[in-house]
This record gives sequence, C-alpha cells and structure tokens, in this order.
Amino acid sequence: MQHQDQTYEGFSGTIVTNPAHSGPRPGVLVFHSIAWRGPIEMAAAERLAAMGYAAFVADTYGKAPDGPEECRTLMNGLNADRSELRRRIEAALDWMRGAGETNGNHAAIGFCFGGKCVLDLARMGHEDVKAVASFHGLFDKPTWPGAPRFPASVLALHGWDDPLATPEETLALAAELDAAEADWQILAMGGVGHAFTNPGANDKAGGKHYDARATERAWAAAAQHFATTL
Amino acid sequence: MQHQDQTYEGFSGTIVTNPAHSGPRPGVLVFHSIAWRGPIEMAAAERLAAMGYAAFVADTYGKAPDGPEECRTLMNGLNADRSELRRRIEAALDWMRGAGETNGNHAAIGFCFGGKCVLDLARMGHEDVKAVASFHGLFDKPTWPGAPRFPASVLALHGWDDPLATPEETLALAAELDAAEADWQILAMGGVGHAFTNPGANDKAGGKHYDARATERAWAAAAQHFATTL
Repeated sequence: MQHQDQTYEGFSGTIVTNPAHSGPRPGVLVFHSIAWRGPIEMAAAERLAAMGYAAFVADTYGKAPDGPEECRTLMNGLNADRSELRRRIEAALDWMRGAGETNGNHAAIGFCFGGKCVLDLARMGHEDVKAVASFHGLFDKPTWPGAPRFPASVLALHGWDDPLATPEETLALAAELDAAEADWQILAMGGVGHAFTNPGANDKAGGKHYDARATERAWAAAAQHFATTL
Repeated sequence: MQHQDQTYEGFSGTIVTNPAHSGPRPGVLVFHSIAWRGPIEMAAAERLAAMGYAAFVADTYGKAPDGPEECRTLMNGLNADRSELRRRIEAALDWMRGAGETNGNHAAIGFCFGGKCVLDLARMGHEDVKAVASFHGLFDKPTWPGAPRFPASVLALHGWDDPLATPEETLALAAELDAAEADWQILAMGGVGHAFTNPGANDKAGGKHYDARATERAWAAAAQHFATTL
C-alpha cells in the first residue's frame, strides 16, 4: 500500500491507497479512538485500501498527544465542544473532497470516540457521505441539531456489554436514526464489550476487552456495507 | 440442485443438495413461515445448497394446509403447545442426523414462525446444532425451560419496525441469550418490518412489507454466519 502524510488546516493525516487500483475511487475517512491515530487506524486504512478505497486517517486533536493523560484531556475537550468537533470532522472531509483521489463518493469509519465522529458526520447530512460504520462508537447526540434527513447509510458495530453505549442509548440511537429517515443497521454482539477491536484492551470486568471474533464479524459487516453503498 | 422429497414421522420434507459438492457436508434445516413450506423455503434451500450445505426443508404442520385459514389454525395450535412444536422441530433434526448427508454439524434457518422454531432449536441445547439464523422470527420464549447453556451461535435478522417482535422483546431475547452464555448477534435494520423476505408482503401500514435490500443484507449476514460457524 502507498502511504502519504498530509497536513490540512492545522491537522495531520495519512492517505493510504493501493497502487494496483488506479483512482479515482470512493474515499473512506478513518477517525481515531481516544488514543489518537495509531496502529489500529493505520491497519484499518490498509484494509480499506486493499478493498479498493482511498483511506484517509484523519486527526481531530491537532497535535500528537503526549501520553494517555493528554489524550483524555483532548478528547474530553472535544466531547464538551461538539461544534468544534464538528468543525474538525468537516475539515477532514473537506481535505478528502479536494485531494483528487476520490470519485466523489465518501464514507467514514471510526473506533470508540471515532465512532462518535462518524455518527456526527452522518448527522451533518452531507449528500456525498454515502455510508458510515461505527466500531464500538458512542451514541450520545451532539449539541447542534442534526440534519432533518441523514443521507448516509449507517452501520453501528456494537458490543452489547459496552458500558459506554448502553441498551437504552442503543434504543435512543435507533429512534434518532428513524426520525432522520436514515437507512440504518445496528449489529449487536452478545458478550462483547467496548474497544473490542483493540488487542491491547483487557479489562474484562470493566467491559473493555479485545475480541478477535467480534472484530472479524464487524469487519465483514463493514466490508459488505461499503461494497453495497459506495 | 438435486431435490428429494422425504417423509418422516408423519411429516414431509425436501432435501436439497448440490451434486457438484459431494457429501458429507454441514446440514441446514429450513423452517417454514405460517404459510407452510413454499417457494421462499425452497429458494432458501437452493441458496444453502449452492453454498455447499445439505438443506432440508422441514414440516411442522404434518399436512399440506388447505389455505391461509388452516395455516393460521395449525400455527396457532403449535404456538399454544410449544412442547409439541419442540417434538416436531426435533423430528426434523433427527431425520437430518440419520440421513447420511451431513458431517454431523447442523444448523437451521427459519422465516417468521420458522424463526421462532430455530430459536427454540437453539434453546434445546443440542451440541451438534452449531448455528441458527432467524429471519424476522418471533422471540417469545417457550413454556419449557431452555438449556442452561445454548451451544448454537445465534443470529437474529430483525426488522426494527416488526410489530411481532418489539424493541422490548428484542431486549428480552438479548437477556435470555446472555443468561444462556450464547454466542449471539442481532442485526437490527431500520425501516424494516416483519416478513421482509416475502415478495408478497405489502402491508406497509401494518409493518409487514417486502424489502429487497434487507433481504440481501440478511442473507449476506447469514452466509457469513454459517461460513464461520459450520
């Protein structure tokens, strides 16, 4: 795969493409977890590029965080200012739109906090965002009002034991997506917690634990989702 | 595909196999909707046979019903006598076990009432039933107690607007499957009602309507489910 680091509006990202597929092709943004963009996001972009997409690992922090404590501070700041988070998500989309790598069809995936980012992207209502896939994302609504209709097809890959996205919040997400007439799917997986794609997650008691089987199921569903919507 | 009609313990079924795949292979039981075994069940069996499975379209009525009214009477009788329904589901499994067509790994799919049948099959706890997939199935528990542990991997393909399986019943199914330590997945699809695989269903107001996109999504998920569990 071909990697190219980019800077845009004070952020830094990496575009990953498969030289065997010549562009333009659909473009997929990859939004990072609390831990900023790292190996999980890069591996996801490689996987998407292998499927034939142009994958852009985006940044919403605007800097390389100095350890887990700063990660939490930066994430909490954006959770407390969803309009600023919106601006940063849109900056990544705008970069992708202008990069000349895509055919005008865009999508996004994200992990944990990044799952919230892709749901926020769906809520914005951009017509060129055809699909999003949230991996153990958070479902809480932003402070800004969502578009009356969400054009993006939404897939939430969800561990049923995720303490950060409870059954009640899952029902609320379904109701929100229904109200926005979204085409949506929620894949709920039993015995699966938060952070299930993260091989470093091992807090079973706290509901955050790696699950290889759930990871592959989620990826199979995401691949099918993008194959049929992009 | 090769079709062979069978009779077993007062019931009638059809086994469908692909001559291009020589047996033994995993066997998948197909349980019918209220309308008894018909074109949807036969098409499902053909699809499963094309995937390399031995598919057996089972019968739980014990006779060819004489029109929709008798279908409802027969189904209601079994809904009111879940132990008798259990006996009939097990009769189909026993036929499959003895047919010499399978490698000892069994699974089941079912539509509507048949979805209830496959969930009941999971509840029985047979170790050789590795996976079940319910298409717009009903989630109400039987009167007999389920096994302490369900060995079958359960996939419920579920229209979120299905009036016969409400969000509350969906949460109850998740809790039941959790309590039985089942490996489970529920794929909830927004804007999708009951009977979504049935091209003849057109009661949008009543929440029973055909949905070609949901049908293909459900089949893709079921194919993935069986490919990874059988």
